[in-house]
Amino acid sequence: MSEAVISEAALFALATKALAAGGMADADAALAARVLVLADMFGLRTHGISRIPQYLDRVRLGGIDVKAAVTTERVAAGLARVDGRNGIGPLVGMRALEAAMEGARAAGIGAAFARGSNHFGPIMPYAFLAAQEGFASIIASNATTTIAPWGGRDTRVGNNPIGLCVPNPGGDPILLDMALSVAARAKIRKLAEQGLPMPEGWAADRDGKPTTDPKAGLAGFLLPVGGHKGYGLAVMVDLFAGLLSDAAYLTHVQAWDKNPGVAQNLGHVFVLIDVAKLGGAEWLHARMEDFGSILASTPAADPDAPVMAPGAREFAAYARQRRDGVSVLQADLDAVVALAG
Amino acid sequence: MSEAVISEAALFALATKALAAGGMADADAALAARVLVLADMFGLRTHGISRIPQYLDRVRLGGIDVKAAVTTERVAAGLARVDGRNGIGPLVGMRALEAAMEGARAAGIGAAFARGSNHFGPIMPYAFLAAQEGFASIIASNATTTIAPWGGRDTRVGNNPIGLCVPNPGGDPILLDMALSVAARAKIRKLAEQGLPMPEGWAADRDGKPTTDPKAGLAGFLLPVGGHKGYGLAVMVDLFAGLLSDAAYLTHVQAWDKNPGVAQNLGHVFVLIDVAKLGGAEWLHARMEDFGSILASTPAADPDAPVMAPGAREFAAYARQRRDGVSVLQADLDAVVALAG
Repeated sequence: MSEAVISEAALFALATKALAAGGMADADAALAARVLVLADMFGLRTHGISRIPQYLDRVRLGGIDVKAAVTTERVAAGLARVDGRNGIGPLVGMRALEAAMEGARAAGIGAAFARGSNHFGPIMPYAFLAAQEGFASIIASNATTTIAPWGGRDTRVGNNPIGLCVPNPGGDPILLDMALSVAARAKIRKLAEQGLPMPEGWAADRDGKPTTDPKAGLAGFLLPVGGHKGYGLAVMVDLFAGLLSDAAYLTHVQAWDKNPGVAQNLGHVFVLIDVAKLGGAEWLHARMEDFGSILASTPAADPDAPVMAPGAREFAAYARQRRDGVSVLQADLDAVVALAG
Repeated sequence: MSEAVISEAALFALATKALAAGGMADADAALAARVLVLADMFGLRTHGISRIPQYLDRVRLGGIDVKAAVTTERVAAGLARVDGRNGIGPLVGMRALEAAMEGARAAGIGAAFARGSNHFGPIMPYAFLAAQEGFASIIASNATTTIAPWGGRDTRVGNNPIGLCVPNPGGDPILLDMALSVAARAKIRKLAEQGLPMPEGWAADRDGKPTTDPKAGLAGFLLPVGGHKGYGLAVMVDLFAGLLSDAAYLTHVQAWDKNPGVAQNLGHVFVLIDVAKLGGAEWLHARMEDFGSILASTPAADPDAPVMAPGAREFAAYARQRRDGVSVLQADLDAVVALAG
């Protein structure tokens, strides 16, 4: 597929315009565009501006309210509840991020629990923005069910993403953003299209039996990372992001791909910690650099594949694309240009 | 090995007496004993009263300060720093738990970052005590390095435990307490003793090559759950629990088994959320019961192994042992009786 390179500013303006043309208020469109453009800059294309046509399709079908007035209710100095009122996910996510920042500024630690949301993009942009403001973060969301509970044979748990990030004043944060299946459904779909077998341990068929046939895996369910451990973590993320935030959870979450016209009521949780309260910038920078160098200097099993800190690859992509322009698929760019009108 | 059954109250009195006889102040001994007895009640024997002789051995060797006066510094309404001053781990853990509760009562969410600590037992007792007071929790600790960074061949990351718990007013919480290796070193040691092979994927030899020889695995390093995902999570836990709390991290953590006379300076993090601020007890109970029943009613792959919520097995053990007495190894009980004098 052919590639296009576009400056960060131009991509941001275009994404904002497309979302506004789709019905969002300008300021809201800019907030949502910020998340999606950052995703592309980190190299996370499947969660970048390529999502705009999908989001606006769901708006057209009545599944998302593009005019939603997201509300924030402060329930304690450090704690806020956010109701996305079925708005565009990255808008709800940014509002929840702001509410959590406000709490963390006031109390040293702050959290926002968001309900009434939709797909909010990847976690990395939120964690990055929080790190730039001096906050360590734990951010998570629930999602459409694609995983079976451990020992079960029915998809009842989402492939829920969780991210953790610690800032490094004057350097790159260390940042993990992961979902809890061994492999993403998109990867399995690709193998099915290519007629290739699937590695063992990625998915089970509809009877819960291990399979290397990607089609049987797609008809069955994804396997969680580390068996019962990944299952347990996916459950806990749903409890924090979905149940505690008064959103839908487990099988109550509507599948956006099967029922695009129905509200999903996804939930997110944002926990931010003001690290300046724990020590000065020099103290933190020295420790983060030392920590990173202990990891990076580990003798590698394969000399051509050096050991990396979580997120290092994505921060390198960010720095490169900030300098040289953002690389996106031409087809994705064309679609957004068309929507921007 | 022969078993003994003893009432919760008698085991608690005995553990407290043994720790006090070892030099702890009575009130501190009671706090630490609380954690270890709860561990045994959950069926987590390797982290229960069997640890008392080991803790007191390290006291004797100068590795732990049994008289340590743990300090707490409140740095924001929701945020506290705890210095364990090299005290007995479960005492430091309980003091950090109290500090985090105080923060969460004040700000809706509270955290404590603890440094200068030692092995603090399992996470489950702390999460359970927090749940009984109405707090959801995220609790983690760093640990002696036993895992190699993903793609590396040197142990530089701890098998760091993390726990998450959501309370259920009038019912059992849902609670995950896990470490981040595929298998525990103790399990591998057992296979080595029995001369049995080790399943693939548990550990690598000292050159980073996969092995099914448990002895080669013990000389090498543990593999993280889910490859790069478990590695990433172990790193993030160390950043939150170790680096941000001003404790040791990665290879700076001293191995208690190799250098029992040297302070480990382990770090812990406790994040607590006052769930009453998010909704009433009836709302939460109804949602937690529904959530649990969706999981438990999943068709099982093996009809004899029903699907369970994380922690359900341990809560069943707790209820049973509360009623019928706590089952411990006779040898462990004898050792504590001897120490209690």
